[in-house]
Amino acid sequence: MRIGLIGAGRIANVHARTLHQTDDATLVAVTDPDDEACEALASKYGLKRHESADTMFADDEIDAVVICSPTPQHIEHILGAARAGKPALCEKPVAMETSSVEKLNKDLEGLDPIVMLGFNRRFDPSFARVHELATAGAVGKIEQVTIISRDPAAPPREYIATSGGIFKDMTIHDFDMARFFLGDIVSVAAIGQNLDPELADTGDFDGAVITLTNAEGAAATIVNSRHCASGYDQRLEVFGCSGTLEADNLRPTTVRISGRDTTAGMDPYLDFFLTRYEAAYARELDEFLSAIAEGRTPSPNIEDGAKALRIAEAAEESARTGTIVTL
Amino acid sequence: MRIGLIGAGRIANVHARTLHQTDDATLVAVTDPDDEACEALASKYGLKRHESADTMFADDEIDAVVICSPTPQHIEHILGAARAGKPALCEKPVAMETSSVEKLNKDLEGLDPIVMLGFNRRFDPSFARVHELATAGAVGKIEQVTIISRDPAAPPREYIATSGGIFKDMTIHDFDMARFFLGDIVSVAAIGQNLDPELADTGDFDGAVITLTNAEGAAATIVNSRHCASGYDQRLEVFGCSGTLEADNLRPTTVRISGRDTTAGMDPYLDFFLTRYEAAYARELDEFLSAIAEGRTPSPNIEDGAKALRIAEAAEESARTGTIVTL
Amino acid sequence: MRIGLIGAGRIANVHARTLHQTDDATLVAVTDPDDEACEALASKYGLKRHESADTMFADDEIDAVVICSPTPQHIEHILGAARAGKPALCEKPVAMETSSVEKLNKDLEGLDPIVMLGFNRRFDPSFARVHELATAGAVGKIEQVTIISRDPAAPPREYIATSGGIFKDMTIHDFDMARFFLGDIVSVAAIGQNLDPELADTGDFDGAVITLTNAEGAAATIVNSRHCASGYDQRLEVFGCSGTLEADNLRPTTVRISGRDTTAGMDPYLDFFLTRYEAAYARELDEFLSAIAEGRTPSPNIEDGAKALRIAEAAEESARTGTIVTL
Amino acid sequence: MRIGLIGAGRIANVHARTLHQTDDATLVAVTDPDDEACEALASKYGLKRHESADTMFADDEIDAVVICSPTPQHIEHILGAARAGKPALCEKPVAMETSSVEKLNKDLEGLDPIVMLGFNRRFDPSFARVHELATAGAVGKIEQVTIISRDPAAPPREYIATSGGIFKDMTIHDFDMARFFLGDIVSVAAIGQNLDPELADTGDFDGAVITLTNAEGAAATIVNSRHCASGYDQRLEVFGCSGTLEADNLRPTTVRISGRDTTAGMDPYLDFFLTRYEAAYARELDEFLSAIAEGRTPSPNIEDGAKALRIAEAAEESARTGTIVTL
Repeated sequence: MRIGLIGAGRIANVHARTLHQTDDATLVAVTDPDDEACEALASKYGLKRHESADTMFADDEIDAVVICSPTPQHIEHILGAARAGKPALCEKPVAMETSSVEKLNKDLEGLDPIVMLGFNRRFDPSFARVHELATAGAVGKIEQVTIISRDPAAPPREYIATSGGIFKDMTIHDFDMARFFLGDIVSVAAIGQNLDPELADTGDFDGAVITLTNAEGAAATIVNSRHCASGYDQRLEVFGCSGTLEADNLRPTTVRISGRDTTAGMDPYLDFFLTRYEAAYARELDEFLSAIAEGRTPSPNIEDGAKALRIAEAAEESARTGTIVTL
Repeated sequence: MRIGLIGAGRIANVHARTLHQTDDATLVAVTDPDDEACEALASKYGLKRHESADTMFADDEIDAVVICSPTPQHIEHILGAARAGKPALCEKPVAMETSSVEKLNKDLEGLDPIVMLGFNRRFDPSFARVHELATAGAVGKIEQVTIISRDPAAPPREYIATSGGIFKDMTIHDFDMARFFLGDIVSVAAIGQNLDPELADTGDFDGAVITLTNAEGAAATIVNSRHCASGYDQRLEVFGCSGTLEADNLRPTTVRISGRDTTAGMDPYLDFFLTRYEAAYARELDEFLSAIAEGRTPSPNIEDGAKALRIAEAAEESARTGTIVTL
Repeated sequence: MRIGLIGAGRIANVHARTLHQTDDATLVAVTDPDDEACEALASKYGLKRHESADTMFADDEIDAVVICSPTPQHIEHILGAARAGKPALCEKPVAMETSSVEKLNKDLEGLDPIVMLGFNRRFDPSFARVHELATAGAVGKIEQVTIISRDPAAPPREYIATSGGIFKDMTIHDFDMARFFLGDIVSVAAIGQNLDPELADTGDFDGAVITLTNAEGAAATIVNSRHCASGYDQRLEVFGCSGTLEADNLRPTTVRISGRDTTAGMDPYLDFFLTRYEAAYARELDEFLSAIAEGRTPSPNIEDGAKALRIAEAAEESARTGTIVTL
Repeated sequence: MRIGLIGAGRIANVHARTLHQTDDATLVAVTDPDDEACEALASKYGLKRHESADTMFADDEIDAVVICSPTPQHIEHILGAARAGKPALCEKPVAMETSSVEKLNKDLEGLDPIVMLGFNRRFDPSFARVHELATAGAVGKIEQVTIISRDPAAPPREYIATSGGIFKDMTIHDFDMARFFLGDIVSVAAIGQNLDPELADTGDFDGAVITLTNAEGAAATIVNSRHCASGYDQRLEVFGCSGTLEADNLRPTTVRISGRDTTAGMDPYLDFFLTRYEAAYARELDEFLSAIAEGRTPSPNIEDGAKALRIAEAAEESARTGTIVTL
């Protein structure tokens, strides 16, 4: 399996390293309009440089692509890969608006493409294990999911301005996790918070609490913050009628320190998303390669991306209007 | 300090035992229309039996009362104690409707009574310690409070029928905890759940997720369930701008068992509220006795009861109408 | 069951309080040559004061005694109670030398007394639960027991001078715990430590590591220190062929605090033995009263005291001579 | 830095993968008398195959070697590398007898070689962090070190027969850890156990408890077992005069499961040494490459190997003779 990489930015570098380490595929080419970044990545791993995504799609020596371009280009690149018959792993989100995804789906009709969406958290070993256990009935029927999801620090103000807002930018991952456990969502109640005075004039929330329900009445609650003193706070609890599953934060060591005032104190959480989700990115790529090898639809896919996006839009509406939105 | 006990039921027995063990007061009398219960309690601790609350209020050898009568009589007994100039510790809730509490407050005008309300959780050593640390600024400004509060098992259907509904009966404690940390609440978004088919026709919810905010935009999220396989699930997390405080469940031992499939497994949680909150009841009584001794208003008091009740009414409205209610 | 208390010191006060709270017995009398202490305890609980242990033994209105006199009088008081036909709960250790216990046993022959020895740790809810699980086979055949046992702070130098040394004074409890799990001990290897310069000239060790084995080759390792910055460090691990059981320290709350540098830090351990083992003292008394009520020999008893003492003597010999002592 | 690998067995494969992933060195050659293993490794990473260690030592295009040959050849290969002026990282143990290491040291005189010994546990992120904190004085003067070290399952009987015994084969790592924290050891008290009937006739112990002391009187206690139901049990506690540091086992996820009978149960420990110490092997190699780059003596080195070996011999003597051995 020969892979081409569209993009040479931060997340592209993660995928490049993961591809370099797997035995199941070979990274062979890269393309990025940023000449310097493209050359750096190409020379590091000995890759062919393509002039554009289009020449990559036309290249017979590339079997599949990983799309790490900016979000506004995702749809164009997914379509290009699909038309070339090349399986694609595309970073989230598919697009900024539900309407764009609907158009994409129309354009893809008849192409029967293999497209996987990079909701990496489904592949985190702990979250995946909770899902596996929950699906196997280890805690009975799922009744309540509680997701604590806090970034270590807010992104730059400029980033926030073009991010699409906290729900599409940050909570989108948590919406996907809620769907991972509860399936389709039917109601959205969201509270937005403006806690950091430095971010007050961005027009975006920097904290949020969102409650989702599915048709069976199970609920998922998401608590979000743009900052967390102890690191990247990523926890999950699945409460079922016969038990509870919890996934805790990751720390660099297992060391506990005890002294006169405090005992059993641990390290701060891993605080960079690439470190925190390192294993998840590798396992996500495995799923992509396995799905191709086995000729099956990978999961999550465009539909999952569209549904998470729809929830994000509903959350924004709920938080802005003070109503509980029904989907 | 000579104490009279109004009521001889389950919670009255808790207070009797606590009063028996303290050196700061002496339980001297009890009254309850249930003859058998009253006699049992009186003979166990060598107490004088009063015919009614009224004769107790008139008794000069009683300095203060603890009101454990059924909720519908709380107002009458608070008023009686106040008119007799006796401090009173009254079990929650003050009443079933906000309107009744408003009338009570009017009737109490000019009496300047010492009335404490039995929101016992404020006195739980762990929750109280979180509050003490948070108030001292240990985690900076409070931004998000997350309360997991699940009963070990649903009460009998007959109880539910007269309970006033999950928000007034069960969540009322959590509303008080939210106020303990966030002060006055300005918005309430509630989702009600009907998960247990056995309880479907009670007309009450058996699960709920409620999000509250205060005027500064801090949020409290409450996750409730009428049942929990592992026991009485009572946890709390306070997230501030510089750290997080968590209080975990109580277990009977510190034992961890490891085997081939599972490691470090612990005991189920304490599952009976009297055991779980044993220390809280004792510390609550201490506060009542201290407040009397020091001539100060005890906390929490009728106002706290009224405000929790008002939130419960708003939660019911939010859950029934699908709107976020502003207070 | 009417109980007389011999002694009015610290541990006597613990037993008095426990007896006051139980429904199964009534504390009726106390005796202590220290007039002030005796009067204080007598008036607190409304007890009859006896002039001496002997008049107490002669009193028909006393059914059983709790012996809290200084160690040198234990044997005399055990014998007195036995001759009076009164069951006795005696604080550990029985005596300072194995030879004295042997003489006691001779003197007790034919009296068939009910004597229980106050090795309170066997009744700690967590250690007892480990024992219950281990005995029920929860971890298979026991192979290795690890006991961490550290006092919060060294006792006064004067106390150490008359304590009989760390092994008889402090480790004796751990030797009993080792026997609780492994039964009779056949070899003792001990290392003594002198770590605190302030205690260097007491002639006693202030730290120790002792390894014991039983006839089946199972081992118990005890790590002792006269001080521990985080409190009273009392942990236990039982490793069996199919699993491991651990009992952790007790803390006053379940609170965990997380900040920028440390996460999930907890309270220091309970650091006063009366607080740490409060539940153990109550359960120990229950066993004493139950054994009397059921007419059976309580456990642990004089034999257990003698065997722990014998191990302490062997440990001292091992540490002083650098040999592994066979029993 | 061009690296040659001597050996193509299991541990050689670990080093090959780690070398493949680092940017600081390039694995270029391999040699192993086992043709198949050598070819497999060579083709996987595109390596030159050398006929023997000697031709590798003579190869100017190799800058340093990693020695993964069988223990009996370690000395010969260390010497060969030293004579060729090539830095070497050699797997532990240096040799089976202290006398052989003494001869090696004599032969190395004047060669001033760079030799690092593969005591990988020093590089485990958690153990290394404990060391870093302890060295920085985070818990004051170290008084007691407790090491729990249990393999998931006993090796084959044939392996045990040629292993040199549990102390040289397994505990040698723990002896090095004890030295890592306490420096030179002056006394050794060891108890050997024969718990598994299947291993009874190997003549070797399958469990052990060893207590070491240094000249300042600090003690290290090691509890060993050839098997552990829950996985590879690798824990460490450093107790100092002002606090305690603990390193816990590693698990594949952070998931905790709670049900009716058990709560907060976790995964079994990682149970394969290559997985458990994966990060340690990578960090060990980093230290080797850094030491070469910076022209300094790497740590641990031959002297550390010799001293651990000497303790192992003393432990065997102590366990066999029932005496505490002084070094």
